[in-house]
Amino acid sequence: MTAYPLPPGSTIGILGGGQLGRMLSQAASRLGFNVVILDPEENSPAGRVSQGQIVAAYDNPTALGVLGQTAQAVTFEFENVPASSVARLAEGGAAVAPGPRALAVAQDRVEEKSFLNSVGATTVDFAQVDSLDDLLAALDRLGVPALLKTRREGYDGKGQVWVRSADMAADAWNAIGERPAILEAKADFTRELSVIAARGHDSGIAIYPLGENIHAGGVLKTTVAPATIDAKTEARAKAIATAILEGLDYVGVLGVELFDHGDGTLLVNEIAPRVHNTGHWTQDGCVCDQFEQHIRAIAGWPLGPTDAHFRVEMTNLLGDEVDQWKALSAEPDARLHLYGKAEARAGRKMAHVNRVKGL
Amino acid sequence: MTAYPLPPGSTIGILGGGQLGRMLSQAASRLGFNVVILDPEENSPAGRVSQGQIVAAYDNPTALGVLGQTAQAVTFEFENVPASSVARLAEGGAAVAPGPRALAVAQDRVEEKSFLNSVGATTVDFAQVDSLDDLLAALDRLGVPALLKTRREGYDGKGQVWVRSADMAADAWNAIGERPAILEAKADFTRELSVIAARGHDSGIAIYPLGENIHAGGVLKTTVAPATIDAKTEARAKAIATAILEGLDYVGVLGVELFDHGDGTLLVNEIAPRVHNTGHWTQDGCVCDQFEQHIRAIAGWPLGPTDAHFRVEMTNLLGDEVDQWKALSAEPDARLHLYGKAEARAGRKMAHVNRVKGL
Repeated sequence: MTAYPLPPGSTIGILGGGQLGRMLSQAASRLGFNVVILDPEENSPAGRVSQGQIVAAYDNPTALGVLGQTAQAVTFEFENVPASSVARLAEGGAAVAPGPRALAVAQDRVEEKSFLNSVGATTVDFAQVDSLDDLLAALDRLGVPALLKTRREGYDGKGQVWVRSADMAADAWNAIGERPAILEAKADFTRELSVIAARGHDSGIAIYPLGENIHAGGVLKTTVAPATIDAKTEARAKAIATAILEGLDYVGVLGVELFDHGDGTLLVNEIAPRVHNTGHWTQDGCVCDQFEQHIRAIAGWPLGPTDAHFRVEMTNLLGDEVDQWKALSAEPDARLHLYGKAEARAGRKMAHVNRVKGL
Repeated sequence: MTAYPLPPGSTIGILGGGQLGRMLSQAASRLGFNVVILDPEENSPAGRVSQGQIVAAYDNPTALGVLGQTAQAVTFEFENVPASSVARLAEGGAAVAPGPRALAVAQDRVEEKSFLNSVGATTVDFAQVDSLDDLLAALDRLGVPALLKTRREGYDGKGQVWVRSADMAADAWNAIGERPAILEAKADFTRELSVIAARGHDSGIAIYPLGENIHAGGVLKTTVAPATIDAKTEARAKAIATAILEGLDYVGVLGVELFDHGDGTLLVNEIAPRVHNTGHWTQDGCVCDQFEQHIRAIAGWPLGPTDAHFRVEMTNLLGDEVDQWKALSAEPDARLHLYGKAEARAGRKMAHVNRVKGL
């Protein structure tokens, strides 16, 4: 058994070397931890700011063995890390957080919505779809338009298609590769909110003020936080996050995306068992950001404060929008966070900027 | 000639892999730069959070050649880096900042005080001492007690001795190894202040609010910032810093330690051509800290804002004081910064804590 809190000088292993791993690594270093990254891509954004990187596939048994032997706590920056890898790490005695249950729920959209409903978190109506017949029956029950998504994988709008009439069912089923799927009723909402919440090994919970998110083309563009929200709705959102954290016996930071109907109703869109793009505002709005919070949680440290001291507007810089760095560097209230990615492919998350308001 | 501003993806080289190099590296990464450290000690605190470390002596010509070829800007974390190394880097075409003039002035206490006086910055009276006879003559002129220091090297109270009577002169001369020295009249002051100031490649200047410092055993213990100070004295301190920056045609962050006589008189104690321990409070008191500011300056970016949004009390954790991490991790207003040093030798700077006030 790992003894908590882990002392500085311990090593933290992170599966995934992208920007989330990078910012987790930087937070861990500030607390005196050493960090080792596992990522198949050499010289990854996170690897470049960490003590070491193991360059191997996420399911490479030797690599997982080395990581588990080296690190006193292991975490991940994305929810599609193979469940078998986490199981292998856990079997080898490594303390992996969040645990396998959170990962299993987050990796399967049917499991996720079923779990959410089981802890009292409302979602849109949905149906499991394993065949074209299932899809037709589901369309009949949920109505059109409805959203057909693969049960597993797919993000930022990939692996999903709107079905606007029963005539389109066969094409839609084909478009997602005839894979196990979920059909979701159309959500009727006025805005998307998100909750960044953390739970520690001691079951303590800390929740940041809510953010309001604006997407473009299925990708997050902007989060403004703290969101303008009445106290009752905010309390309800935090209660939903608490129920999810407790239902999963969760350790670490979790992102919860909510649809706000504007009439007090909140539906959970999805959960992410990791630090979350909609929580980047905490880097410049709070004294303890979501990355330090996650490290504190998995290392068994007391959770940090979550009060917002500034209002922040976070904007993602996608693809060649990163070329705006020069103009942004001259904006006094704009705090730049660049990920060190060499190639600015279209739509790729290259950086974000936090505009700090009310300084 | 280097074209400024350096774009993200450029490489910054840092001579010195201690905590200052570590925090500079972290700030540089956040702006999208890659960082390479040169330090003779393997696996240094800075090396562990950087893309690479060249393990070699600071005057190793091959290592300097590699660093100069790799990095588009080179800087240092301590003022005792060999001047010949900086000269070699500059000859090889590397852009080194701060430049050789700042280094030469900071490395020799007689040069330093002479320079300071030349730009109108008052210091204690002093005399150059190259022999015991010089020392006796200087004691006669400056009175006792007076402080005998080696001209070069020595820090945190090392390489210096108080001379309390002419009888002690021979012992004192012997105690500092009969090396070229400076004798300084006793400074009569009520408190020590410091100014953290930056100047860019475009000659722009940015100065943080002053800090008030408390030393113990010759080592900085605490800085409280912004210091309580009247506007006239603050303006005078900033004018002194400006004169120094301009007199050295300086690029980067500079620390200026001031003796405050309490009657409006400010004497410069010493300057440090680098980020400074008394500027660590900016990490949690300002949106752009001294580390980012230094990177912005040497990369030719616009300087960042220097306003303090919080009052901060910075405390160094020396030697086994680092064991306080556990208690400090539970203090909500205490932001911990650990340096990742394995061995907590007595008096060694292991970490600092910023206590954020007025949240």
